[in-house]
Amino acid sequence: MTTDRKLVLGIGLIDGYGGMHGAWRAPHVDPGTYTDVDATVRHARAAERGKFAFLFTPDFPAVRGDVEHSTINNLMDPLIQLTAVARETTNIGFVATGSTTFQEPFNTARQFKALDVLSHGRAGWNAVTTSDPAVAANYGRPVAERAERYQRAHEAIQIVQALWGSWQEDAWIKDQAANRFIDPTRLQPVNLQGQYVASRGPLAIPPSEQGQPVVFTSGGPSPHLLSIAGRYASGFIAEVWTIEEARAQRELVRNAAREAGRDPDEIKYIAGIMTTVAPTVREGLDRRLKYSGDVIEARLPHLGAMLGIHIHPDRFDEPLTPEQLSSAHASPRDPRSANALAVAREGWSPRDVLAHGVIDFHPTVVGPGALHADHLQEWFEAGAADGFWVTPDIYEDGVDAFVDEVVPILQERGIYPTEYPGTTLRANLGVPHQYGLDPRITGEPE
Amino acid sequence: MTTDRKLVLGIGLIDGYGGMHGAWRAPHVDPGTYTDVDATVRHARAAERGKFAFLFTPDFPAVRGDVEHSTINNLMDPLIQLTAVARETTNIGFVATGSTTFQEPFNTARQFKALDVLSHGRAGWNAVTTSDPAVAANYGRPVAERAERYQRAHEAIQIVQALWGSWQEDAWIKDQAANRFIDPTRLQPVNLQGQYVASRGPLAIPPSEQGQPVVFTSGGPSPHLLSIAGRYASGFIAEVWTIEEARAQRELVRNAAREAGRDPDEIKYIAGIMTTVAPTVREGLDRRLKYSGDVIEARLPHLGAMLGIHIHPDRFDEPLTPEQLSSAHASPRDPRSANALAVAREGWSPRDVLAHGVIDFHPTVVGPGALHADHLQEWFEAGAADGFWVTPDIYEDGVDAFVDEVVPILQERGIYPTEYPGTTLRANLGVPHQYGLDPRITGEPE
Repeated sequence: MTTDRKLVLGIGLIDGYGGMHGAWRAPHVDPGTYTDVDATVRHARAAERGKFAFLFTPDFPAVRGDVEHSTINNLMDPLIQLTAVARETTNIGFVATGSTTFQEPFNTARQFKALDVLSHGRAGWNAVTTSDPAVAANYGRPVAERAERYQRAHEAIQIVQALWGSWQEDAWIKDQAANRFIDPTRLQPVNLQGQYVASRGPLAIPPSEQGQPVVFTSGGPSPHLLSIAGRYASGFIAEVWTIEEARAQRELVRNAAREAGRDPDEIKYIAGIMTTVAPTVREGLDRRLKYSGDVIEARLPHLGAMLGIHIHPDRFDEPLTPEQLSSAHASPRDPRSANALAVAREGWSPRDVLAHGVIDFHPTVVGPGALHADHLQEWFEAGAADGFWVTPDIYEDGVDAFVDEVVPILQERGIYPTEYPGTTLRANLGVPHQYGLDPRITGEPE
Repeated sequence: MTTDRKLVLGIGLIDGYGGMHGAWRAPHVDPGTYTDVDATVRHARAAERGKFAFLFTPDFPAVRGDVEHSTINNLMDPLIQLTAVARETTNIGFVATGSTTFQEPFNTARQFKALDVLSHGRAGWNAVTTSDPAVAANYGRPVAERAERYQRAHEAIQIVQALWGSWQEDAWIKDQAANRFIDPTRLQPVNLQGQYVASRGPLAIPPSEQGQPVVFTSGGPSPHLLSIAGRYASGFIAEVWTIEEARAQRELVRNAAREAGRDPDEIKYIAGIMTTVAPTVREGLDRRLKYSGDVIEARLPHLGAMLGIHIHPDRFDEPLTPEQLSSAHASPRDPRSANALAVAREGWSPRDVLAHGVIDFHPTVVGPGALHADHLQEWFEAGAADGFWVTPDIYEDGVDAFVDEVVPILQERGIYPTEYPGTTLRANLGVPHQYGLDPRITGEPE
């Protein structure tokens, strides 16, 4: 079986603690982990033991939510924190989210390529637009209209990729005897002038072992985002709840690449999954109830709405009655409802149904390693994903549990590599070399 | 003798190779050092052995000069490269240059504070304005007028410092048992609206061991820059050639602090020095001639102009004649001329006079450790500097040579610490704790 038919895994690093509400409160977790890069290094090394291709840091550069009772939903700073990890790891990639709306393309190009070079070809840029008013306020600007945000995104990504290629691959002569450091004719300006951003260049950073960082994008597959993904991205980070939705989204993404003149296999569609690995489902549910019980309690009324039935508070710990199950139906307003109903039909109590993570951010698997492997294999073989970004319930032991209990099964089944395909992010994703703008992409975006 | 009466040293990291033209061509230097963070780590650890307080990275985010025959005058990216070094060092600080003109204050605040926290209180920000057209072109903007640049600088530094203090020092409760992560009343917006930049905040990063990064500034002491230095800076990075000029500049800087309501001892005036440490002056000159001989050759005609005499090419290797010396006078158009004349009067040939570095960017000392110590002590005791940023001729062996040959003499003379005063940049600079904006600074800048 060739490398490109194996699935790719990344870890989603969302806040230092883990994907489960209350992870920061677990007794084996230091509540100061948010600022502790030693912990990030530990988690990265655990992932590297499991041949994970990348760490992915979502980002929301503003404070939101109930920070009194839950954590800050970010790393301190994605690029800085991942850079600190780079020298203590050898193969895992670093996909940091960076805004095309609120960052200067020259700074983005420079910082990501510096990380790419110093990590020997392991950097990726998750290029996203930013429309949240709280974030815009941190930059002292109004929220831009969607058309403007995406026009700026096209310009910013083109400038960044052009700057990456402006120090041509053979420009650095560094010949001491001949006294020639650079061939100046091969260090060339980009002179890109967009409607919103511009840069002259060149950028004074040579190629890394993978040429230049890998561009990702993420979000819901709107036509605007698909135009970005199809033209520039080698990875698409999805938020998707069902296999059908994922297949449809993946086809949209692949078609967008085709329309831009690219081979659709050059863009990897990466679905999300949250994991609680435990010897049995019951033990997994107990782990989740133990640490995030109060959040689950608060969601119990919402579960009835998802299933279209009334659940009396006295019966939160009893399986649904046959009458309830026969009248229950998945709410069309929440794509997670069908899964919630399926779990309820297995005979779990409402509290246990919620402990399955049925209204979490991604599909959640709770239980032994084989259950996780089944989920990944089913999606992968159904053409619903090229890979997954895995958010363990608690990083401190959840990464190791996944690596010890899930990865060997995937390897036995022949759908996951037993060794890293290479030392660069491109090699481990299975995406081709690129330096500068992709010459196949021509014309204006739609 | 108390800590605050000892001088402070930093290393100027200008390009990965060293301060001497041709450093990259020395046989013991890997010409690929520009991208080699292993080398930066080696140089940082050597400096740490010598109790250096900080590494300082000047920055010029555009390609300039003759890059065919000399190096790129930058690190790849100051903040990224210093972050990569942070975890492999324990005491040395990191003063990275960052533009108030072309960087978003929210991004600056976030990235520097993230480095400050992960380095356990060792970050500094050299806040500079940017007026160079080549840099402005990389950001797709025209060069702003000076008044606008400095108004934006005031706004940017105030926003950055306010954001640093917006996560109040006691806000992070992280009480697992009580289920309280943050006290939200102590995480407060800054709501600063300037004429050019604005931010709402808060910033989601807690204090470091030194509270927040140390603000530096650098450049010639114009009234505009003095207003920045006096109000915000704890360090002033100078470019200055004579002891008299340095004393006058240092007084201007200290007066600017007084006028802003601060104690002038809270701002450290840091003069530059370039060093070639060798057993004898002759051996030091030979080292410099060996690696940068062609640059020195090219400067020979200019030396005559500095001294107001004609020097025949046939006599570049002969000491000036008594007639030449008696008619020579220091050109008032170049502040380095008096030193050039003094060196010529010692009897050196024009080539050797230039090999002394008399037209380099900073005063240059060539020879045994005691000569270097004499220079530093003379300036320090004359009130011309609180410390120095040292740019060795070649980092690969020049940092070690300084640490082995100069530092022990300074320590014997009682003007330099034998141990680090502390583990934070503030402790090692001898500047006070600060968190958020300095409450003593009120009113509008002039």
